[in-house]
Formats: sequence, structure tokens, C-alpha cells
Amino acid sequence: MAGERFIYMDNNATTRVAPGVVEAMQPFFVEDFGNPSSGHFLGARAARSIALAREKTASLLNCSPGEIIYTSCGTESDVTAIIAALESFPEKRRVVTTAVEHPAVKNLCEALTEKTGRDYRLTTLRVNRKGMIDLGEFKASLTVDTALVSVMWANNETGVIFPIGEMAAMARRRGVLFHTDAVQAAGKIPLDVEEVPVDYLSLSGHKFHAPKGIGVLYVRNGSPFHPFLMGGGQERGRRAGTENTAYIAGLGKACELAADHLRGGVEKVRELRDRLENGLQKMIPGAEINGGGSPRLPNTCSIRIPGTRGDELVKRLDERGICVSAGAACKAGVCKLSHVLEAMAVPPDYGTLRLSLGMDNTGDEVDYLVKLLPEMIEQNRS
Amino acid sequence: MAGERFIYMDNNATTRVAPGVVEAMQPFFVEDFGNPSSGHFLGARAARSIALAREKTASLLNCSPGEIIYTSCGTESDVTAIIAALESFPEKRRVVTTAVEHPAVKNLCEALTEKTGRDYRLTTLRVNRKGMIDLGEFKASLTVDTALVSVMWANNETGVIFPIGEMAAMARRRGVLFHTDAVQAAGKIPLDVEEVPVDYLSLSGHKFHAPKGIGVLYVRNGSPFHPFLMGGGQERGRRAGTENTAYIAGLGKACELAADHLRGGVEKVRELRDRLENGLQKMIPGAEINGGGSPRLPNTCSIRIPGTRGDELVKRLDERGICVSAGAACKAGVCKLSHVLEAMAVPPDYGTLRLSLGMDNTGDEVDYLVKLLPEMIEQNRS
Repeated sequence: MAGERFIYMDNNATTRVAPGVVEAMQPFFVEDFGNPSSGHFLGARAARSIALAREKTASLLNCSPGEIIYTSCGTESDVTAIIAALESFPEKRRVVTTAVEHPAVKNLCEALTEKTGRDYRLTTLRVNRKGMIDLGEFKASLTVDTALVSVMWANNETGVIFPIGEMAAMARRRGVLFHTDAVQAAGKIPLDVEEVPVDYLSLSGHKFHAPKGIGVLYVRNGSPFHPFLMGGGQERGRRAGTENTAYIAGLGKACELAADHLRGGVEKVRELRDRLENGLQKMIPGAEINGGGSPRLPNTCSIRIPGTRGDELVKRLDERGICVSAGAACKAGVCKLSHVLEAMAVPPDYGTLRLSLGMDNTGDEVDYLVKLLPEMIEQNRS
Repeated sequence: MAGERFIYMDNNATTRVAPGVVEAMQPFFVEDFGNPSSGHFLGARAARSIALAREKTASLLNCSPGEIIYTSCGTESDVTAIIAALESFPEKRRVVTTAVEHPAVKNLCEALTEKTGRDYRLTTLRVNRKGMIDLGEFKASLTVDTALVSVMWANNETGVIFPIGEMAAMARRRGVLFHTDAVQAAGKIPLDVEEVPVDYLSLSGHKFHAPKGIGVLYVRNGSPFHPFLMGGGQERGRRAGTENTAYIAGLGKACELAADHLRGGVEKVRELRDRLENGLQKMIPGAEINGGGSPRLPNTCSIRIPGTRGDELVKRLDERGICVSAGAACKAGVCKLSHVLEAMAVPPDYGTLRLSLGMDNTGDEVDYLVKLLPEMIEQNRS
């Protein structure tokens, strides 16, 4: 870090592990390091800690602990859910998804249509300029041939929230399985699977202050399931591999913190985000919010600044110790808009920044950025 | 722990995370918590730490860093290797394995023969009473139809070491891909893939003092590969999912420690193990070493004690604060010998204990057990 201060506004990429989470993990490295499958007290302690964490995770989602499977990441949760659903209805050959999914879902769905012997048909729901899908188009995709819908709860780039409750209910009425990648929604908006009838739901710990390398797959009681990782009998035969006791304990704590945050802190984050957006829009002529006008996560600001290049702004902010993301990837001067912004028909000016806030951000930081960024853009343009 | 002291001799189940490993991981939770894919300095730091760890892991195996893929566990490494190999030669339909593999390999191989559209033929190599396979039988299994051999380097229950170098060379001459589950061998015997021409090799961090939840898959340059977890471009497109930077840094350190241990400490472990075995055999009439007479890992003692039940001994040792494993699983009074001991045609007396030592064990602990266990058995029998 070369800059005089450190501002982290890239919480949709990953989050700082909360000190309380670090504390919750610590005993399981050197002291209570037993294998939960072992028949002695050290194994039993590890198994108990996992059971406790599972209750906390279930509580965040308002489900029962037996519906929680721990995985190694959001990607594994996504892949496990999608493959499990498809293997359950081998005669149905259509998968419905959206044009703005995370690569974990997008690339798998596309591969399903290509691989020998898999030859699935894919319906990719479009989004409008506000990043929103059309429920009529969705309804039409629920044919007798449709095995599975996989639609993210909230978008990682724009924060746009899809009407998952309504969509899952529609799918359920048609007998179609429903998976949602809720990786970006966790800890930012309530996720209640009693109200929202999804069959499968994916979480990733590192998006809400647990470490990278732990994920959750919720599988509704009664929804079909096949393990993706086979081997030992861990996770009641649903996910083989010795349990990551430390991270599972940490994830349990992170779920507890997320529930607390939803009861209070999240409104502070929303105020900061709004202050940031309003400030930047006021100071930067022509700046627009991607996904503005749609329901959005309270922490995400995807702002399009005409006549700039996001990657260059990211670099210049980085030099000042400020961490944010761009909306396009540039290599050797050639820029490619993200598939999300492309699907939203955003003008290809490559000037998008994603500023994603978290519980650690302050009003000072927001004000600093509202002052700094317009100056920087002015210099960049001149 | 109810007992007056704590003795851990279950290192083949899992190991205590080394304090040096905890220290290596620590910075990546709260300080350097960046996503290695991020374009700012915090991402770059995480990416650098992974590159450093990869060099250390490669050094332990004597390969190049580009041949190392980080996974979430040994099971994932095994499954990834096996599926990748089979997808590379779809026309070959035979898989060769042994009767004593870990469930991660065993259950997958068996499922390959069952699943619709997969219908592989499985050759399961037998072992003799000493736990050793027959190289003639192995050679005969390498038919033109054989796609892959998956054979463990060393057995988790008995510690018996298979002649992987010789076997891999034979497979290579016949154009058959070779995977070895080296999970139990790491840190106990040298693993040099320049000398031993395997195509794929699996490691699991928690068996050599890294935490549970991190694995390694070695893939030889030029050997065919397909990712098992698809999605983002992590691990050069070979394993999707945000990298577990903390555990990867820890695993790098654990590889370094394992290399050190192999240069010295391991001989101390072997001496302790031999002292334990000799002492127990002297004091317990009829006690025999499972796999005795075969090359074995220096830390593993699988001892068969006629007229006892392993699960009961495990329980009574547990009450004294001593952690070991049994060689049979018992439920409601019905015991089932492990598939390893069954394959070795061990008499079904259920009296096997596995005592697996590690770098933390002491001579005092060994002497204590050599005194305690015979007394305990005497009481058990009377």
C-alpha cells in the first residue's frame, strides 16, 4: 500500500474476517484439532462444535440444521446443487438461468449444453437496462421439459435483487426445482427459506466475514439430492472429505454476526452507500448508477462514469490505498465489459467502478472518496 | 478429557496444526484478507502468498509449481484426478485399484461401475496377509482397455507402503495413466515425482500438520486434465472457487516442516514406533502387527490383540485421555472389520488398535502405553 490511508470498498469481492470469527476458529487448530469422525473425546469435541455451528447457520436461513451441508466454497455449493437436481430428473433436459449469473453457475450451465452425453438445453433469461429480468419470460421458460432453475438472489456487480420468492413459488407450482446462488445476498438482506420456497441455496463464507474456503449448501428437506464429492460418510453422506472444523466454527459465528448486522448495522451501510452515490453523482457530471431503479443490495454502488476507464481508476485509487473493482477487464489496452454490464446493454465506455461497502466503512471514508474521485476523474480526462 | 494426561496417537486420522503453520496463516484473516483475483494491492499480496506457498509445495514433491493445484481436501484431489483421467480416454473402460484404498477412491471407483452411462469395469487388486499386492496380478491388469490405475502410496490403517515407483513405471510403459493417493505418505516418507512417474498425486493438509480443509493435487506437465470444479478462472482454470489463501499459506509452511521432518525427526518417530511395537508384543501374548513384514510407514502401528475388542479398548483408553483408533466399527454390539483388515484376511477377532505416532510424541508416552495397555487388556479379559 503506497497511499496515506487504507480504504476497503471491495466487499463484494471478499471481506475481512471478523475478529470474532478468528476467535471462534482458533481453538480448532492447535487444541481441539480432532477429526470429528474419531471415536475419542477429541473427535467428539470437534463433532459438537460442528453441530453448534450448523444450528447457527440454519438460524440465519430459518431452516433446520439437517438441511445444511458445509462445502469448500460457493462454487462447490452451486455445482453440487445443479448436478444433484439434474441427476434427479434425467428425463428433463432444460435448465433456466439468467444472463448475469456468477461464472460458477454460468460456466457450468454453458458446459452442460456442450458436454457429450449431457446436451442440455439452456434458457438464459435476459435482463433489461436496469438489470432486471422479466417474470413473463421466466414463466414461459418453465416448460414440462425444465428440470431446474438456477438464478442468483442478488447480483455481485450491480447488487440488483431478483424476486426470488415469487420466482421460486412459480417454479414450485410447475414442479421445477429451484436453486439460488445467494452468495452476495448473505448478511446484506434477510434470507428466509420458509418464506422463499427454493430447493437449494448457496452461500460463501468469505462474502460475509468468514474466511475464503468455506461454503454452505442448503438443501430443503424432501428435495432430491446426490452427493457431488463422494467418499467418506461426512455431512451424513452428502459431502465427503474431513470436515474443516475451524472454518465451520468460524462460519457459524459469521452467521450469528450477519444476523446481528441485519438487525441494525445494515441500515448504516445503506446510508453510507446512498451518501456515496448521491455525492458522486452530484460531483461527477453524467455519472449513472448501474441497476439504479431496481431493488438493490444496500452495500453496492456500481457507478458508470462516461469518458473514463474503470481499470485506470482502480489503479489510481489503489496507489492511494483504496481498494475497489472495475466493471471491465482490460488486457494490453483491449477492454471487455463484464458479461453483467453487457447483458444490461450498458454503453461500452468501460467507465464503471464497483464500490461495495461493508460494516467496517465509515462516513469519513465516504466523504474522502466523494472528494477524491471527482478530482481524479478531472485529471484523468484532461 | 477425563484422564490425568493427554496422549495423542491418532495421527493417521488427523494431526495437530503446527504452531508455525498457524503463524503462517494468521496474516490472511484480518490483515491481508484480499481476494487474489482483485486488481489492487490487497489482491496482489494474497496472490503472491499463494505463489510462495506453491513453490514450497512443489519443493516437497520435487516438481514445478505449475504442476500443483490446491483443492479443499484429499477427497477432492482424488475425485478430480480420477474423473479427469477417465474423461481423457473415454474409449478405455477399465479402472484398476486395490481392495484397501481409502473410501474416497474406493467408493468413487465402485460408483463408476454402477452409474448410468458410466459402466466402467473395475479390477480390484487383492492384497496378501501382509497387506501387499502382487505385481504380476497388477501387470496383468494393464490391458489395452485400462484407462487409469489409482493406488494409494501407503495405507492409512496398516501403514503398508506399495511399490508405487515400480507400478507407475509399468503403467507408463503400457500407456496407462496413474494416480496415487499419497495422503498418508506425506511427511512420513519422501515423495519424489521425478523418481516416481505418477501422473496424479493427492495430498491432504491435515495429515501433516496443516488444517482440515486444504488438499493438493499434483498433475504432471503433459498429463491430461479437466477441471472438476468449474466456474471462475482460479488455479489457472483448473479449480474454480476463491482461493483459501490462509490455508494455502499454511500448507506451504507445512510442506516446509514436512521436508525438515523427513531429514531428521522421522527417524525419532520410527524409533518410538518400534519401541512401542516391541514393548507391546513382549507384554501381550499373541499380539501381532498387521502388515508386519511389509515395508511400512515409520509412524504406524496396527496391532492385533486376540480376545479383545478394539472399540472397547479405544473407549477405555479415551477415558484415560489417550486417543487411538480401532480396526473395526461396532454398532449395537455388532462389529464389522474394516475393509482393509478384511482384505488382508485378518481373523475377525475385532481386537485391532491403530496407534499412529507423530512428531509430538515422546518416549515417556510410549513407555506409559506399553505399561498401561497390557494391564487394561488383562482386566478386559478377566
